[in-house]
Amino acid sequence: MALGEFELIDRFFRDAGVSRADVVLGIGDDGAVLRPPPGHDLVAVSDTLVEGVHFPEGSSPESIGHRSLAVNLSDIAAMGAMPAWALLSLTLPTAKEAWLAGFARGFGELARRHEVALVGGDTTCGPLTLGVQVLGWVPSGTGLRRSGARPGDLLCVSGTPGDAAAGLALWQRERADESSETHRAAEMALRARFEYPTPRIALGRRLLELASACIDISDGLIGDVAKLATASGCVAHIDLSRLPRSLALDALVAAGRFTEDEAIRFALQGGDDYELVFSVPPQRLDSLDAGPAAEFTVIGELTAGHAVGTSSVIVRRADGTRMDAPGGFDHFLRSL
Amino acid sequence: MALGEFELIDRFFRDAGVSRADVVLGIGDDGAVLRPPPGHDLVAVSDTLVEGVHFPEGSSPESIGHRSLAVNLSDIAAMGAMPAWALLSLTLPTAKEAWLAGFARGFGELARRHEVALVGGDTTCGPLTLGVQVLGWVPSGTGLRRSGARPGDLLCVSGTPGDAAAGLALWQRERADESSETHRAAEMALRARFEYPTPRIALGRRLLELASACIDISDGLIGDVAKLATASGCVAHIDLSRLPRSLALDALVAAGRFTEDEAIRFALQGGDDYELVFSVPPQRLDSLDAGPAAEFTVIGELTAGHAVGTSSVIVRRADGTRMDAPGGFDHFLRSL
Repeated sequence: MALGEFELIDRFFRDAGVSRADVVLGIGDDGAVLRPPPGHDLVAVSDTLVEGVHFPEGSSPESIGHRSLAVNLSDIAAMGAMPAWALLSLTLPTAKEAWLAGFARGFGELARRHEVALVGGDTTCGPLTLGVQVLGWVPSGTGLRRSGARPGDLLCVSGTPGDAAAGLALWQRERADESSETHRAAEMALRARFEYPTPRIALGRRLLELASACIDISDGLIGDVAKLATASGCVAHIDLSRLPRSLALDALVAAGRFTEDEAIRFALQGGDDYELVFSVPPQRLDSLDAGPAAEFTVIGELTAGHAVGTSSVIVRRADGTRMDAPGGFDHFLRSL
Repeated sequence: MALGEFELIDRFFRDAGVSRADVVLGIGDDGAVLRPPPGHDLVAVSDTLVEGVHFPEGSSPESIGHRSLAVNLSDIAAMGAMPAWALLSLTLPTAKEAWLAGFARGFGELARRHEVALVGGDTTCGPLTLGVQVLGWVPSGTGLRRSGARPGDLLCVSGTPGDAAAGLALWQRERADESSETHRAAEMALRARFEYPTPRIALGRRLLELASACIDISDGLIGDVAKLATASGCVAHIDLSRLPRSLALDALVAAGRFTEDEAIRFALQGGDDYELVFSVPPQRLDSLDAGPAAEFTVIGELTAGHAVGTSSVIVRRADGTRMDAPGGFDHFLRSL
């Protein structure tokens, strides 16, 4: 059944997300009319997912819906902002109802959790591509940047980076080789970290007052720490022994499903975690630690120095030896 | 040469568009930080162009850059808004420098003409797709809608609709058959209307005070008038004899390059004109006419009645007979 563009929008997206009083005019006109609160700066983010580049073919529409919004909410979190409104540009080869319903469910559930209204966008015919923009705000003159870290600041990360990359690897390996039924729960947990990443909105908002710089991990820990360090004119040091690892990944390393080296590579280079990396002056760590959203780990520090790109990140093993840290994650070089 | 994502952004897009004092933080962080003027509502629009759907393969990168921004500025114009900031999601198969330079030139030239700053976006690898969002504003509580037309209002259109469709048809015909060298100037003029549409920002801003409803023509005159009429709960009447036609299209009809029927079909059903269609109470027509941006034509009127879709539009020939008006333009049904 071929649905027209307008029917499509109406049927699946008019009610995705929440209703908000600050939406003067939502979906259905040439543009949305929105009323930002006085005394605030607008924060605008935009991220696109392409099938076969950002997620494997055959991903569930729920996961694609969730991820397309989550990666944008993660950018909002990295700015310390409060999300409010989303636009969706949906390009898809055919308008299949079951797929659209699943996509709208995944997108809508996450939107409702963060009280985001879907206020506009467009649908078009073409290779599966999801373009999402989210608008939000911070009190005027605030907003976390990548460039505020200072020598002496501690380097912290939320969650357990590497899980999403491990989940994706399991997924891909499973296809080539259907062997594993052991450790099913751990595998499912990791795969869920890839399919349903958690944008760290609450943590980002707490960081607004306390962190000196922040970025989200979309391209791999080293690559994103390098951007923060370069923008701040610092050198970042990561202690490998302090990197938090999930119980699920630990279990699969213990079971020989992944080697220790693979697990380290996932943590340092894996993209798609959508955790926050941030710097914080040591004297502010206590205020941050005390809060309810304190699910983060100190993994290193920043020192004076000026280097560009991944040479601005130094990774040391538990024995103090320096690791050759390869580059970050560039979508132009990426293949699934 | 394979350029990385970050280099790409830096090299070609950091200086596309203008610098604006209301951009607190532009390209290069997780999000842009923007400062809308107090007392205004934000207007957000989003439109995506896909190669082979919205423009033919082999289109010049300058044209693609121009059109990707123009279609969004056209939506901004249809809201009566003032554009300010743009985000660009660029998905492309390979990062070719010459292509990127051309695209940035086409995009940047139009951005500078309308004082738009490019404040963010992303680049990714995949089939050629351009997702653009533009943010702008209107004084709080204003903003043109599709739904404000009332019985007795006059129906008006800017420019000469049909030119873009004629230009596209010439382009496609030319490939199949390289015969024509006559009427080259007229053909080039029409093709330029497809490749370089003019967003009617100045007209839209004048309409803000005077028009009762407005929409831009992206899907064909009938289809878009139908949306305005349906949203307003009116029936729209178009007098075929009042439809403005460009000298270029006239010349090619006279020369037998297009039939009269084809010319009418281009005007009524052709998409891609990005002109404004609007309704205006008759007593306000003089105020509008007097202005400097009065490049529009009265083509009919609105009457009481309630119909949905294209049955809300009645087209009459010069002799008063009613034309069977086929539907609008739906990108899911479209092939180049």
